[in-house]
Amino acid sequence: MPISVGEEGHVGSSACRNSDLETSCSAVSRSDMAAECGSGNCDAWAARDPFGILSPYKFDRKTVRSDDVSLRITHCGVCYADVAWTRKLVPGHEIAGVVAKVGADVRNFKVGDHVGVGTYVNSCRDCEKLSRELLLKTHLHFQWYCFKIPDGYPLEKAAPLLCAGITVYTPMMRHNMNQPGKSLGVIGLGGLGHMAVKFGKAFGLKVTVISTSESKREEAVRLLGADNFVISSDENQIESLKSSLHFIIDTASGDHPFDPYLSLLKVGVMALHSFPSEIKVHPANLNLGGRSLSGSVTGATKDIQEMINLCAANKIYPDIEMLKMDYIHEALQRLVDRDVRFRFVIDIENSF
Amino acid sequence: MPISVGEEGHVGSSACRNSDLETSCSAVSRSDMAAECGSGNCDAWAARDPFGILSPYKFDRKTVRSDDVSLRITHCGVCYADVAWTRKLVPGHEIAGVVAKVGADVRNFKVGDHVGVGTYVNSCRDCEKLSRELLLKTHLHFQWYCFKIPDGYPLEKAAPLLCAGITVYTPMMRHNMNQPGKSLGVIGLGGLGHMAVKFGKAFGLKVTVISTSESKREEAVRLLGADNFVISSDENQIESLKSSLHFIIDTASGDHPFDPYLSLLKVGVMALHSFPSEIKVHPANLNLGGRSLSGSVTGATKDIQEMINLCAANKIYPDIEMLKMDYIHEALQRLVDRDVRFRFVIDIENSF
Repeated sequence: MPISVGEEGHVGSSACRNSDLETSCSAVSRSDMAAECGSGNCDAWAARDPFGILSPYKFDRKTVRSDDVSLRITHCGVCYADVAWTRKLVPGHEIAGVVAKVGADVRNFKVGDHVGVGTYVNSCRDCEKLSRELLLKTHLHFQWYCFKIPDGYPLEKAAPLLCAGITVYTPMMRHNMNQPGKSLGVIGLGGLGHMAVKFGKAFGLKVTVISTSESKREEAVRLLGADNFVISSDENQIESLKSSLHFIIDTASGDHPFDPYLSLLKVGVMALHSFPSEIKVHPANLNLGGRSLSGSVTGATKDIQEMINLCAANKIYPDIEMLKMDYIHEALQRLVDRDVRFRFVIDIENSF
Repeated sequence: MPISVGEEGHVGSSACRNSDLETSCSAVSRSDMAAECGSGNCDAWAARDPFGILSPYKFDRKTVRSDDVSLRITHCGVCYADVAWTRKLVPGHEIAGVVAKVGADVRNFKVGDHVGVGTYVNSCRDCEKLSRELLLKTHLHFQWYCFKIPDGYPLEKAAPLLCAGITVYTPMMRHNMNQPGKSLGVIGLGGLGHMAVKFGKAFGLKVTVISTSESKREEAVRLLGADNFVISSDENQIESLKSSLHFIIDTASGDHPFDPYLSLLKVGVMALHSFPSEIKVHPANLNLGGRSLSGSVTGATKDIQEMINLCAANKIYPDIEMLKMDYIHEALQRLVDRDVRFRFVIDIENSF
């Protein structure tokens, strides 16, 4: 039997499908995975070696409990975290699908609802202990890790909202970036960056994309509606931006300097989402400008639903490239090569 | 003739006194200072060598212009910036005194008013250009760099508000630290740190002082009212604070690690006020905690007056040690040795 949102643990959800054609998502991290395909009621692809090579894998879902929601997964986004951290687990944390079964106590969802599940499917709900009160304060019920996708919003486009979308939406709201007329710099134009541009335009911001690649200029301006496009290696262009931006969303995934970007801010906030090996900053760049460097990952359940509703109301859709499950290794390599416009989404429904 | 607030330039004000017993403050930075005492209508002490050695010095003030306020300086606080940056200038940027003369167009001040002057006495008032809109947005008139000290507030206690006070007050207000019941960590217990403790208690915060020196424990708790005192080198004590603080005000003046302190925050802000040689932070310490590292110096004119009024209304007084001008070198050395409880203030009125 499939299970579902609401298991113990606080890790990535898996993209899988069980033998009776219901699929579900769950928290899975098994160090004892066999090298063979295994057996069970749920089809998945798993990384069972230290290198992150994915291959078909079966395992058993738990039974649906009274406050669980089970879903038939239709789509799953592919995130750079799947490149960096896919080791000994069934990856997948941008999941969209259709409710297949609900526990007896579930009131918010019914069979057939379109739903999404993101990076966590449970928490200790002890905000003080986790020091994540902003992230977790609304987590009162298991079923609250499941989010409604409004009618008419394509499920394949919904999947990337559950990680890429909420990851940039959270700091944008926390730092009050929804002020029409102000200016936003977006560093990096991948899955996160392109969502930051879309939110920025929806908020009425003047958006400047800062990218390493000239090849993204046309899409940034034409497709995404950015007001300005600057190549990060062009010192003259960067110099011309100095002290001009109210906010920066930094989605660059690799090691990169911070001082040149901080200096682009007026008094303001640079929000970081990546994990370079170290952050080095000259204190004057913070102090004399009255600037802040802020970090975050994902967002609170309340914010996730709010963000999905905003996307539906404003017709904000991630730009995606659909793929089948067996294309995953090429997709991960293309992620490393920054060759994606702008998010891969696995067509789970037609992959197994 | 003495002059006064409202000169060209954007540098520290000088603590000096002119020949007809009126004293005034002004922006002075002269690379052509003579080695001798010089001549002029204003007595000062100046640093005329590359080492920052102070000695008596005379110079001429400009005439009071129509929108200038001239004051008889009575007191001047001594800041760590006077140790670090006193080169070829007349230092002094925490000034209190009595209005001695006003220009024809001055409406906000009259002769005899008690006033304070802080770290800047003019600006280009082009916020966009300076990228300091928060700091400078209220600077519409020269006389606005002069602040009223309410009746009954001792002038010698008022002086340190103009730098130490506003420097910690600004980030406390910007980051909404005035929330009763929340917790504040204060790193370093000098002039800035002790004001942060006082503001924290006035705001109803639970205040933990983090200091290198056990010798400050009793004063932190008994004199300043801190709720908790932790030695920064005590790993067990620091460990017990992990993820427990809503806010941190970091006033430590030297190089120090940032990760151990950032990890003391729940989701929250660490506000930096010092100039270590470099800031190094592990990104996970920002990202996973949803934390921010923020920098600032001084504050906006509106905030300065608001802070002074708050201190008067709540009987918040800096703890000071008064000194005469000729004790300045010992005072500066004691600042370096962290041997001050908690701010030196020069008795200008009785020093010349």
